[in-house]
Amino acid sequence: MPVISKRGTSIPASPIRKLTPLADAAKAQGKKVYHLNIGQPDLPTPKKALDALKTIDRTTLEYSPSNGLKSLRETLVGYYERYGVKVAENEMIITCGGSEALLLTYLSLLDPGDEIIMTEPSYANYITFAITCGATVKTVTSNIKDGFALPPVEDFEKAITPRTKAILICNPNNPTGYLYSDEELFRLRDIVKKHNLFLISDEVYREFRYTGEPYLSALCLEGIEQNVIVIDSVSKRYSECGIRVGMIVTHNAEFLKTIMKFCQARLSPPLLGQIVAQASIEGTEEYSRECFEEYLQRRNFFIDGLNKIPGVFTPMPKGAFYTVVSLPVDDSEDFCRWLLTDYCYKDEKTPECYTGETVMMAPAAGFYSNRELGRKQARMAYVLKKEDLARALLILEDALKVYNSR
Amino acid sequence: MPVISKRGTSIPASPIRKLTPLADAAKAQGKKVYHLNIGQPDLPTPKKALDALKTIDRTTLEYSPSNGLKSLRETLVGYYERYGVKVAENEMIITCGGSEALLLTYLSLLDPGDEIIMTEPSYANYITFAITCGATVKTVTSNIKDGFALPPVEDFEKAITPRTKAILICNPNNPTGYLYSDEELFRLRDIVKKHNLFLISDEVYREFRYTGEPYLSALCLEGIEQNVIVIDSVSKRYSECGIRVGMIVTHNAEFLKTIMKFCQARLSPPLLGQIVAQASIEGTEEYSRECFEEYLQRRNFFIDGLNKIPGVFTPMPKGAFYTVVSLPVDDSEDFCRWLLTDYCYKDEKTPECYTGETVMMAPAAGFYSNRELGRKQARMAYVLKKEDLARALLILEDALKVYNSR
Repeated sequence: MPVISKRGTSIPASPIRKLTPLADAAKAQGKKVYHLNIGQPDLPTPKKALDALKTIDRTTLEYSPSNGLKSLRETLVGYYERYGVKVAENEMIITCGGSEALLLTYLSLLDPGDEIIMTEPSYANYITFAITCGATVKTVTSNIKDGFALPPVEDFEKAITPRTKAILICNPNNPTGYLYSDEELFRLRDIVKKHNLFLISDEVYREFRYTGEPYLSALCLEGIEQNVIVIDSVSKRYSECGIRVGMIVTHNAEFLKTIMKFCQARLSPPLLGQIVAQASIEGTEEYSRECFEEYLQRRNFFIDGLNKIPGVFTPMPKGAFYTVVSLPVDDSEDFCRWLLTDYCYKDEKTPECYTGETVMMAPAAGFYSNRELGRKQARMAYVLKKEDLARALLILEDALKVYNSR
Repeated sequence: MPVISKRGTSIPASPIRKLTPLADAAKAQGKKVYHLNIGQPDLPTPKKALDALKTIDRTTLEYSPSNGLKSLRETLVGYYERYGVKVAENEMIITCGGSEALLLTYLSLLDPGDEIIMTEPSYANYITFAITCGATVKTVTSNIKDGFALPPVEDFEKAITPRTKAILICNPNNPTGYLYSDEELFRLRDIVKKHNLFLISDEVYREFRYTGEPYLSALCLEGIEQNVIVIDSVSKRYSECGIRVGMIVTHNAEFLKTIMKFCQARLSPPLLGQIVAQASIEGTEEYSRECFEEYLQRRNFFIDGLNKIPGVFTPMPKGAFYTVVSLPVDDSEDFCRWLLTDYCYKDEKTPECYTGETVMMAPAAGFYSNRELGRKQARMAYVLKKEDLARALLILEDALKVYNSR
């Protein structure tokens, strides 16, 4: 058989990927699995957006422009204005989700051997895309004890080499839920400026902030206008992950010219998704308010519940809908596996084993360059309704007892 | 300013890309431009497919599985059966158009320095994606004199080195319209087997064959089952390029496992496009027959008309909806540019200059590694209705006279 690329074989299997077949098997046996592992919002897509699909009057579903529908980009100009971000429609490129926005940005910036710095724990696919480009990831470790705040400037300075091309942040953060303060962003700005780096800022969770403070987009950082590239997406914001509409926003014309070559090679972003996205952005203020309230309630309830379980600790996330949790176990990967293969919560209503319940979480080891750092941690997402979160907390508390007294 | 990747800067601007602003300027001046340059079908999308959008009853537009909706893959099993191809639903991966199918296939196979062999003239993006991976393209030249038939085996043998990983074919071919005979495919099979290479077969124009002979998919070539990867797409087949639904089909489990890592990193193909694609595949036999008839008529009319213009020659394409045309000019790039910037067809009805008409074509130099080979050639697509093709032929004949007597 001919040989697969080294690039392909060197991408590690994600922690969740390994657990998925086990979860499927548990479900096949009749077990109910509460999914705390995924960031797939359960809330409905705005009705206005779904209705837009029903009134499409095109007879041919043709390619959209490679940088996306102009009408969508014009609508986004207004959206960003609400955040004090001044961008023109030709400073945006519509992509197939935030994922394509990231991959094409990496391809435009990183040659094999180049380095990109990110904080850890970090979203695993940031690393996968770097391997795809042949680039090296350097990590700067944030700590659960201070809620995963931005690590000290010295840690970034230590990670910077002549091959460093960019610093990547996710704000609010997946997986930690941390939201950078203005002061932290200013520190990043200074590092970026001093070393002439790109700052890639993934802001897809911008809408989900629970501190009440105004949002400072990286696009508003003065003095590094040519360095900042914002990754964005409508997926989480309007519960429409499946439409695959993301965007790249930057003032850097040279970068835009380069990334357009990749965009033209892949021809066009999804037309139908763009129509839905455009309908989602305007006239949905009430929808957004309701979603925000729902996530806020869930966060408060879930984090409080987690911290009441003996031996469990998680900081209060300020944004997004994830939290990284320290568990009273030696190896959270083993615990997460055991939850799916061995454990089964039963009460009076579900006396039979394998018709009971369990929870699925993402072990955090895969979010760190040094797996040891995440050995006792797991990422949990609160994208379940409150009664399911309550049930998941009950099960988790029981499971920890059973696991630790085996 | 920080520095863009070498990868990004080394991708050449496509020939069409350079002409597009000139065409826009011509149109802004009131000139009518007949687009022979693009492969965007003008026919309507099947009504059944458009109707599927209006009856979506989901409340949340969530991620589909990373390998695509199972129901779509199951529908495709039946589609391929009609071509004598036996594949299971788990031997397919749904992608964001044929473009993503190609890019992810390349990423799974090609490391920097690896080589891929393709015939030229070739679709320019095959080369762009190779540069994206850091791979080197080796070309084997096909010739307009014999209708762009498969070059002799010796030419492939000469191009093969220890770094060769794959041979790529497009069948029926973009840009030439050539359709490989069974005998030619057997020759390719033997080369691939002898040197243990992958055979990437782009079959997105499978439906458009004008010879009446049955289609031999690369998936049916015996003895190289583990080597063949088919790239496919519903875009051209159902005039739905904008939905971005393509697919990868292969019997190679190791390859599927690898490419799934890239697919999982980009999370999911477009959900709405998959719903439309699924509705397009079944119960649209009448639609497909009508499209085929239309393209057949156009081909016969257009190729005949081209060959009647003094000094113009193009072989009769056996498939797809493109043809590569030899023109009586010294430099087709200059001619194509001149058509947009200087030339203007006028008759009694359009006496004013800049309210007249012209044609846009893709100069062929960019489809060859040695630009010289395509210096007098252009690619034309017959995706206009017959009366527009007639008008384009009239204009082209006049333009050649004016251009050559300047």
